[in-house]
Amino acid sequence: VTAKRASKKDLPPDAEGILARGVIEIIPRDEFLDALRSGRKLRLKFGLDPSKPDLHIGHAVLLRKLRRLQELGHQVVLIVGDWTAQIGDPSGQSITRPMLTAEEVRANAETYMRQFFHVVDRERTEIRWQSEWFDNFTLADVVRLTSRFTVAQMLQRDDFRQRFDAQKPLGVHELLYPLLQAYDSVVIEADVEFGGSDQLFNLLVGRELQQDMGQRPQSCFVMRLLVGTDGAQKMSKSLGNTIDLEDPPGEQYGKVMSIPDSALLDYLELTTDIPDEELAFIRKQLEDRSVNPMEIKKRLAREIVAQFHGASAAQDAEAEFERVFQQGGTPEILWKDLPFAQLITIGISPAEVLSAKGAPVMAATLVAMATGISMSEARRLIEQGAVEIDGKRATKKIVNLKPGSTIRIGRHHFFRIVDASKSS
Amino acid sequence: VTAKRASKKDLPPDAEGILARGVIEIIPRDEFLDALRSGRKLRLKFGLDPSKPDLHIGHAVLLRKLRRLQELGHQVVLIVGDWTAQIGDPSGQSITRPMLTAEEVRANAETYMRQFFHVVDRERTEIRWQSEWFDNFTLADVVRLTSRFTVAQMLQRDDFRQRFDAQKPLGVHELLYPLLQAYDSVVIEADVEFGGSDQLFNLLVGRELQQDMGQRPQSCFVMRLLVGTDGAQKMSKSLGNTIDLEDPPGEQYGKVMSIPDSALLDYLELTTDIPDEELAFIRKQLEDRSVNPMEIKKRLAREIVAQFHGASAAQDAEAEFERVFQQGGTPEILWKDLPFAQLITIGISPAEVLSAKGAPVMAATLVAMATGISMSEARRLIEQGAVEIDGKRATKKIVNLKPGSTIRIGRHHFFRIVDASKSS
Repeated sequence: VTAKRASKKDLPPDAEGILARGVIEIIPRDEFLDALRSGRKLRLKFGLDPSKPDLHIGHAVLLRKLRRLQELGHQVVLIVGDWTAQIGDPSGQSITRPMLTAEEVRANAETYMRQFFHVVDRERTEIRWQSEWFDNFTLADVVRLTSRFTVAQMLQRDDFRQRFDAQKPLGVHELLYPLLQAYDSVVIEADVEFGGSDQLFNLLVGRELQQDMGQRPQSCFVMRLLVGTDGAQKMSKSLGNTIDLEDPPGEQYGKVMSIPDSALLDYLELTTDIPDEELAFIRKQLEDRSVNPMEIKKRLAREIVAQFHGASAAQDAEAEFERVFQQGGTPEILWKDLPFAQLITIGISPAEVLSAKGAPVMAATLVAMATGISMSEARRLIEQGAVEIDGKRATKKIVNLKPGSTIRIGRHHFFRIVDASKSS
Repeated sequence: VTAKRASKKDLPPDAEGILARGVIEIIPRDEFLDALRSGRKLRLKFGLDPSKPDLHIGHAVLLRKLRRLQELGHQVVLIVGDWTAQIGDPSGQSITRPMLTAEEVRANAETYMRQFFHVVDRERTEIRWQSEWFDNFTLADVVRLTSRFTVAQMLQRDDFRQRFDAQKPLGVHELLYPLLQAYDSVVIEADVEFGGSDQLFNLLVGRELQQDMGQRPQSCFVMRLLVGTDGAQKMSKSLGNTIDLEDPPGEQYGKVMSIPDSALLDYLELTTDIPDEELAFIRKQLEDRSVNPMEIKKRLAREIVAQFHGASAAQDAEAEFERVFQQGGTPEILWKDLPFAQLITIGISPAEVLSAKGAPVMAATLVAMATGISMSEARRLIEQGAVEIDGKRATKKIVNLKPGSTIRIGRHHFFRIVDASKSS
């Protein structure tokens, strides 16, 4: 046993990177460093929310961190939130979520775990269901638990406070959510709990409850949230901007290729193991334009597909992507190639076409041009709602395009309008 | 069965008075009148708070109302709040009450009921313990119940809101209190719930929950609160101004005699069955000074003692009171008889003595004079803390007296300082 323990003074060699990359904060940092130095096998708490069974690479950012810590010998404790899911945590949502049935929860948890263990080491994971302790939770237990916190403390949670202040409904049962989650930490004697920045409040409540009940309090390990494929909002199923762990290789590849260049470095840092030094080099390359961002994006796409489908699937996805989208060398549509002439014939003046405000184009013409399919087939796709332009479902009307506009056809075929004068 | 039912249109002959005397409001009044007219046997909910086992005549105001409605054929359902007592309802208190143990609750409930049935008809009372339904209340039940109310709704309760706004602690568990009490109404299918004005919020939550759960909602029957023997604050054990149901006859009698004249009519209305017409007559007598208030007070004292100890005990208490306190004709001390001379000799000027601000007197001298005991015995009583002057425990120091000041010796011997120029 002692042989396995590291020196009490030294951090494990990998720790530095693990504690920095993608990490917003660790509260309290010193306490967690001491715990790492202690040689103890730490219990890393992570909560599974069965109301959201589909994992995307935003979740994987955190799971990858767990995996790294498992590799240092620590133990993941996965809490299946089968009780809290029935309550529904409306974090950041303006509407109280519907409660799930026990069966929905069970099915969702299975789906979740199948994906979870794509990343996390099952051998070093203890799975605990909240129902183990909450099925027999009495009213007396509820009273004891709730008596340890004040209403004011609960309303320090941003979204609670905001809804309360805005006179939007905040159910009394919702106050129970953070408390039950906190109680999980006590039951499993968590040393650290992991969450995104939107979970900080809940993590701190767990820490406080442990302390209040005489237990060594957990550290709170807060990770950055990955931005969605739109490059703007956090990755979230309800926003439709996710890359899911179980998306097929081609779809994952295509979705990665659709992210804006501005999100590229964030993705590289949070979703790959490319070393920090190399990331710094890539950053420099991108800044001084010594590399085509497309090439970096293809590498990112390969890295991500390889994680969930293997290196060979990643190669195939890339080959297919190149075959379909890069016959012409790029999935970009040059501004100058837009079918302006045709528009002018239907009454748009040349001045309008060339104005900085954007150029009007028939959506069907655009789709036909981008994909090489017939105009009638393009119209059919539009009627089916399969075409989006700048995030809005295209109709048969004329759309207004600018350099930088994106066209999405189907689930993961993306094109970007590029100003010829600035390209190559 | 039909023979027992009154006409659907008429109220029972006594109802008018029952619905008026001591009643602040009945919400909604029309609904309750319809229920009375329906001929149904109504279920009158009343909550027993086992954290306050000693009943005083302030409680009896409400119990007497229940009794009257029982006499019309209705059913009292007494809820023993063995669960809510463990939570502690801090109505109007600034400090969260300590939780009681189950054993304390049981012992207190027994004490309470012994007193309760001095007034309420046991035969027409169904006793239900909250533990019947809350002992097996699951976390799912708690979630379902709490999900029906918002935090904002709960903070409409005055004392919750005040504490919240003043940043005084308001425990999350305290929000459960009104909800559990409301759930009681659902379980027992209450038609009416009774409470003092400080209970209005809780009663309304019960009504709302019943409605929300598809049950005919209860009416809320809100009674006035009786003022304490100080004539100023509501009668409450913690304020030390109660007349308890189980106080011995002499003590009840003496305490009634100690109330200020200003509270007399209130007491007559709320604690006796003296008819309204007679009350009106007494009011007039008092206003035009055609009666000595002392005589009315003695009648009140007799009425109250007779309720809890019988008419004969009331007669005895009166005789004893007269023997001890009215040897001199009155338990009053005339202003001009105060031992000023002695004070002047110890350095108080005549001007000070005669000022409107009050006169300084040695407490022991005063006690000796009032009771006829020796100065040394008077000093001993003061040392034992048995003497209060104007509500404050007397010390050996000089006290400041005014006409209207009261002296209490022991538990129920009272004297009042009267300005000779204004008396008789």
